[in-house]
Amino acid sequence: MSKSVAPVLVIHGGAGSSRTIDRRRLIAREQALKGILDAVYRALQRGSSALKAVALAVEMLEDDPQFNAGRGSKLQADGKIRMSAALMDGSRRRFAGAVNVEGVRNPIRLSERLLRNPPDGSRVLAGPGAARFARSQQLRFRSPYTDERKREFRRAGKGKFGTVGAVALDSKGRLAAATSTGGRGLEYPHRVSDTPTVAANYANSSCAVSATGVGEEIVDFAVASHLCSLRETGIGVARASRMLKQQADKSRARFGWIALDADGNFYVATTTAHIIWAAATAAKLEVHA
Amino acid sequence: MSKSVAPVLVIHGGAGSSRTIDRRRLIAREQALKGILDAVYRALQRGSSALKAVALAVEMLEDDPQFNAGRGSKLQADGKIRMSAALMDGSRRRFAGAVNVEGVRNPIRLSERLLRNPPDGSRVLAGPGAARFARSQQLRFRSPYTDERKREFRRAGKGKFGTVGAVALDSKGRLAAATSTGGRGLEYPHRVSDTPTVAANYANSSCAVSATGVGEEIVDFAVASHLCSLRETGIGVARASRMLKQQADKSRARFGWIALDADGNFYVATTTAHIIWAAATAAKLEVHA
Repeated sequence: MSKSVAPVLVIHGGAGSSRTIDRRRLIAREQALKGILDAVYRALQRGSSALKAVALAVEMLEDDPQFNAGRGSKLQADGKIRMSAALMDGSRRRFAGAVNVEGVRNPIRLSERLLRNPPDGSRVLAGPGAARFARSQQLRFRSPYTDERKREFRRAGKGKFGTVGAVALDSKGRLAAATSTGGRGLEYPHRVSDTPTVAANYANSSCAVSATGVGEEIVDFAVASHLCSLRETGIGVARASRMLKQQADKSRARFGWIALDADGNFYVATTTAHIIWAAATAAKLEVHA
Repeated sequence: MSKSVAPVLVIHGGAGSSRTIDRRRLIAREQALKGILDAVYRALQRGSSALKAVALAVEMLEDDPQFNAGRGSKLQADGKIRMSAALMDGSRRRFAGAVNVEGVRNPIRLSERLLRNPPDGSRVLAGPGAARFARSQQLRFRSPYTDERKREFRRAGKGKFGTVGAVALDSKGRLAAATSTGGRGLEYPHRVSDTPTVAANYANSSCAVSATGVGEEIVDFAVASHLCSLRETGIGVARASRMLKQQADKSRARFGWIALDADGNFYVATTTAHIIWAAATAAKLEVHA
């Protein structure tokens, strides 16, 4: 006998300092998050798996140039765009990811192929290996070097939130997490961020987390896997999140996260000024920008 | 007032299937581990920090071609050697690492420079970026393409244990962890292993862990950060290790680890047939191969 669960979807468009973002842009992103939330939550209600839902949500975020992932990715100090993504199937406890891949339209779709069809068992690939595998899978390529990105690079422009992500609980009670990033912007070439690791993206049968913020500090706290480990010992995602926020605040670490458990409880927290997020449950739909 | 603690050092030379290793080779590795353990434990007794001790232990393991790291690294399917390493300072909760770097003699020393002197704040670098930073730091380069490696490649030889690591507690009560790998051998080019992530290498003020085994499965279980998260909730490293081993056995996941806490308790476990390790405390020195 299997019981049907009310699906939950939480997505984020990055954490950062609100001082660098103008109000008009925030409202546009709020609208974008709401559109993505609506579309993906409907899919979950129609019976989509959590894994498919988080991949779809992150694909839509990657395709929107307002967010720092996929099409909206930032340039590293050498003028190159290197994107990273991760996808984790909580019910099977399986992780896959792409590190610093160039030119692939949707790094999250590349992660999905690595999860489903890992070449010789390898589920995380970097740079040219990741691009080669993407070509072998006939994934779409598209230059992310838009005019806007090049302008930003010339102005050394920061001011865009970093990283997008999604966590979902589906009607069969399965959890999944997906995260994608275009990097920090103007960083040392070939820097590896937290995104394609369990520090930023983790899910098991009881918990799913996606983190965003200063990558090095997310790694130091192993944010996503830490919260899921606490959940496994019986500590709820809200309490675990408050404990972590206290520790991170004390160390002046700068990051935020969305956390969801198998009972549908979710929690959003950040030690930064701002995190843009949206959540949908059977009861309500909320957007916070 | 600061209390002096009896130092503890635990090192490993990888986990794997014992059927592929002959007895004579195991004895030689046992001798090598003992020599490294002796030298590094003496340094800890003379007041070396845990961070310096684990870096020194892993450097010595990288320089010994019997182990799969540094000089003994395996070749990926395209005939290239790509090495990865990670170093974490538990007392400052800071992680650094190198992903798939080529030609650097000691990836662990590169990780140490990234920890001490991160370029523009970047503490994990991959491939050409990692090599460029290593050159800027005047680190030593040496071709790991020895005749023995090339012979192994031609025979598609496996049978060598994967990954080396060390955890230490110093006389000031500080913990650190270091891990280094030459990869799985003959894997898809540019595969990223667990080693340069918090799944294989983690330390904070209460716990330090280094893991070895099938990289994808270590990532799925977030082995190192998971054990340290459990330790933070008050679960000892022995009990946390037994809990994880039970879960991993059930999923047929193949990995092992060394775990050490701030009270000097340590635990070594593996779900594979074998793990080569050695430990030194004030009371005794033991080697298990």
